[in-house]
Amino acid sequence: MTHLSSTIRAEVLTIGDEILFGQITDTNTQWIGTELTNLGIRPVRKTSVGDNAADILSALHEASLRAELIIITGGLGPTKDDITKQTLCRFFDTVLELNQEALEMVSSFFIKRGREMTELNRQQAALPANCTYLANDWGTAPGMWFERDGRVFVSLPGVPFEMKNLMQQRVLPRLRAYFQTPVITHRIIRTIGIGESFLAEKIEAWEDSLPAHIRLAYLPSFGGVRLRLTGTGALAEPLLAELNAEVARVLPLINDYVYGYDDDEIETVVGRMLVEQNATLSTAESCTGGLVAHRITSVPGSSRYFEGAVVSYSNAIKTGTLGVSPSSLEQFGAVSEQVVKEMAEGARALLGTTYALATSGIAGPDGGTEEKPVGTVWIACATPHETVTRLLRLGKYRDQNVQLTTTYVLDLLRKTLRQPVFNA
Amino acid sequence: MTHLSSTIRAEVLTIGDEILFGQITDTNTQWIGTELTNLGIRPVRKTSVGDNAADILSALHEASLRAELIIITGGLGPTKDDITKQTLCRFFDTVLELNQEALEMVSSFFIKRGREMTELNRQQAALPANCTYLANDWGTAPGMWFERDGRVFVSLPGVPFEMKNLMQQRVLPRLRAYFQTPVITHRIIRTIGIGESFLAEKIEAWEDSLPAHIRLAYLPSFGGVRLRLTGTGALAEPLLAELNAEVARVLPLINDYVYGYDDDEIETVVGRMLVEQNATLSTAESCTGGLVAHRITSVPGSSRYFEGAVVSYSNAIKTGTLGVSPSSLEQFGAVSEQVVKEMAEGARALLGTTYALATSGIAGPDGGTEEKPVGTVWIACATPHETVTRLLRLGKYRDQNVQLTTTYVLDLLRKTLRQPVFNA
Repeated sequence: MTHLSSTIRAEVLTIGDEILFGQITDTNTQWIGTELTNLGIRPVRKTSVGDNAADILSALHEASLRAELIIITGGLGPTKDDITKQTLCRFFDTVLELNQEALEMVSSFFIKRGREMTELNRQQAALPANCTYLANDWGTAPGMWFERDGRVFVSLPGVPFEMKNLMQQRVLPRLRAYFQTPVITHRIIRTIGIGESFLAEKIEAWEDSLPAHIRLAYLPSFGGVRLRLTGTGALAEPLLAELNAEVARVLPLINDYVYGYDDDEIETVVGRMLVEQNATLSTAESCTGGLVAHRITSVPGSSRYFEGAVVSYSNAIKTGTLGVSPSSLEQFGAVSEQVVKEMAEGARALLGTTYALATSGIAGPDGGTEEKPVGTVWIACATPHETVTRLLRLGKYRDQNVQLTTTYVLDLLRKTLRQPVFNA
Repeated sequence: MTHLSSTIRAEVLTIGDEILFGQITDTNTQWIGTELTNLGIRPVRKTSVGDNAADILSALHEASLRAELIIITGGLGPTKDDITKQTLCRFFDTVLELNQEALEMVSSFFIKRGREMTELNRQQAALPANCTYLANDWGTAPGMWFERDGRVFVSLPGVPFEMKNLMQQRVLPRLRAYFQTPVITHRIIRTIGIGESFLAEKIEAWEDSLPAHIRLAYLPSFGGVRLRLTGTGALAEPLLAELNAEVARVLPLINDYVYGYDDDEIETVVGRMLVEQNATLSTAESCTGGLVAHRITSVPGSSRYFEGAVVSYSNAIKTGTLGVSPSSLEQFGAVSEQVVKEMAEGARALLGTTYALATSGIAGPDGGTEEKPVGTVWIACATPHETVTRLLRLGKYRDQNVQLTTTYVLDLLRKTLRQPVFNA
C-alpha cells in the first residue's frame, strides 16, 4: 500500500528510564527529526517513556491516533529491562517467533568475533510474528518494520550508531517508497568565522527573494553556521539546478566565510587541498592536546599528507623536542605569539613537512591571569615562506575552547592554502 | 497543600518546532530529568510538541491525567510564534493580566542595560491571572507556577541558562516544600571489556535477588557497559548504605571489568591514579592520531601528569623522533607487537615519563591485508620495569576502531597502574 498524502505526520517514541532520569543525552531524536524533515515527513511529537509496559502501550496507542509513522527507539537489548519486543507483541496482539534471518545475523556476529553465543543472544532473534525484519549490520539487536491500518511502525535499537545505520540502510529507502514523498533536495553552504545575525544581515535581500518552494535554515554549530537550502518539487534534476543557481547567487555576498558544501568538514577540505598541492602537514599542540591531529586523521587517506604531531603539554617538550627557545618561554610565556610561532616552525623542521600548525592557550578552568585570562589562545601556521599567527579570545569553558581552537587553526590552514604555493 | 504520596510523577513538556525538526539540541529535558530524580520525583514521560495551540493543549491535558507535576519549557519569548502564555490561559480557562511584579522586573532589566522597552517587552509582564509569578533573574521571559486539583504546572523559558537559574532559585525549593517526596538514590558501576549479555549472565543470580525497591539497568555505550542501581526509600542514608552493600555484593563477580563508579570516566580514573602515584604519562600514537592525548587532556588539571605525545603517522617519525629501529619496521611492519613496544619505550625515553602508551593499527577503510585485516591493532603500555602489549581485533569502521583503541589503551594503563609501582 502506498500513500499520496501531502503531509505525512510522524512521532518519535524513545524508550528507556535512563533518558527520563537524565542519565544519558538523547541525540537520537534530534537526528531522526532532521532525517524525517529532509524526507518531507513532518515530525509532530516526540515522546520518551520509561521501561514500563503500560507507559509504552499508552504512548503507542496515542501516537497511532495522531500520526501515520511511529518510530520507536530503545529497549531492544538482551537483558531483562529491555521489554520493547514483548510490549510490541501485546500492542499488535501477536507473539514472538524465532526469525531465521535474524538468527543467522546474530550467529554470524558472534562467529566473526570468535565468541560464544549465549541463550540471551539467541533470544534476540525472536521477533513479533507480524514484523518485517530489518538487518542490523553493527549489532545483535534487530530492526523491525510493522504496518497496520495504513500506518507504519518502526522499532530500532537505541545505540546511536546502530540506529543511524539501520535508518540509512533500511528504513529511509522503505519510507520513501511507502509514502511516495515529494522530491526534497538540500544544498548546504558551510561557513566559518561569522555569526548567525551578521550572516543574516548580509544575505537578507537574497533570502527575501527566494521562491516559496525553496526554504532557508540557519544551522549554527560550534564555530560555524551552515546555511541549508531545502527545495520541494516534482522532479529531482530541475530542482537541484534551481538550488545550485541560488547558491551561485548568494556566494559573492559571503565568499570569505565559505569553506565547503553539504557534508564537507574543514578537515576534509584542507585534506583535499593538501593532496592537490602535493604538500604535507604536521602539528605542534599545546592546549588542543592532540585534537587537531585527531580531526585531521579522522579523514580516511589522511596518511597521504599527514606526517605526525607533537603534543607538547610540558615546557620541557617544547624546548627539548620542538626546539622552542628557553629564553622565549621565559620572556613571553608559553601562551605567546613568539612561542606558538617557534612551535609551528619547530614541528615543520622536526617532521619535515610543507606546513605545520601550532596551538598554545589557556583552556581553563584554571591557569588564567589578569593579563592572559582563560580563553586566551595563540595559533600559528608555518609555511615554506612565512609563519602566520593569530590571537583568539575565547570563553571560559575548557571543552569549548579546545574545540573552537581546533576549528580555527584548521581554518587558518585553509586560508593559507588558498594562496597557491610559490615553489622557488 | 502538601502531598505524602510515595511517588510523585512528573512529565516534562517542551514546546518548539525547532526541537521537532532537529534544528536544535534539547539539553533542557536531560537536565530537568536529573534534577527531578535527585529530588525523588519520578519523571515518567517527556513530550515535545510544535508551536501549535491544539498540540500544546492536548499534551497538557494528557499530562495532567498521568502526572502530579508538569514542567513546561519554551514558547515564552516576545515574538509571534511564542504562544505558551495564551495557550495556558485557554487550558486554565483564565485571561492575561498585567503582573506588577513582573513589569517591575522587565523594566529594571531594560533600565540596567540602558535600553528602551518596547510594547512587545511590556506584554511579557502580562501573565495568566491564576499563576504565581516566578522572577527570572537573567531575562525578560517569566517563570509561572500553577496549582489545580492537587497538581502543579510550572512554565519556564526555553533558554537553558534562564531555565536552569529559575529551576534552582525558585522551582526546586517550592517543589521540595509542596511534595514531601521519598528519596531516590542511584549508584552506577562502570565496566569495560565485557559485553552486556556476558555481564548479565555473570550477575544473574545477584540481579534476581535484588529487593523490589532496588532496580537494575544496563546502560551500554562505546566499549563499556554501565550498571545502574536505583533505590527508592524513606531515608537517604540507610538507602545509600543498602545500595553500597549491593555494589559490594556484586563486585567480586565482575571486579576485573570495573573501572569506576557514578560519573567516573576512564581518563579521569587513570588521572587520579597517576596523581596518587606521583607518576607522569606520555603517548606515542599511530592509528589513534592524537585521540588518546586529547581524551587525557580533556580532564582539567591533566597537565600535572601528562607531559605530551608524539603522533607518528609516518614511519620517518617513528624512527626519527621515537627511535623505532628501521629493521623492526622492515621485518615486522608498522602494525606489529615489536614496533608498538618500541614506540611506547621511545615515547617514555623521549618525553621522560614514568609510563607511556602506544597504538599502531589499521583503522581502515583501506590498508588492510589478508594477514592484517582492517581492525588489527597493537597497543602497548611501557612502565619503568616492563612493556605490556596487547593485540586487538576490531571491526571495519575507522571511527569506531579509533574510539575503541583509545578506550582499550587507557584501560591497559588502568590495569597496569593497579599494580603498585616498585621503586627500586
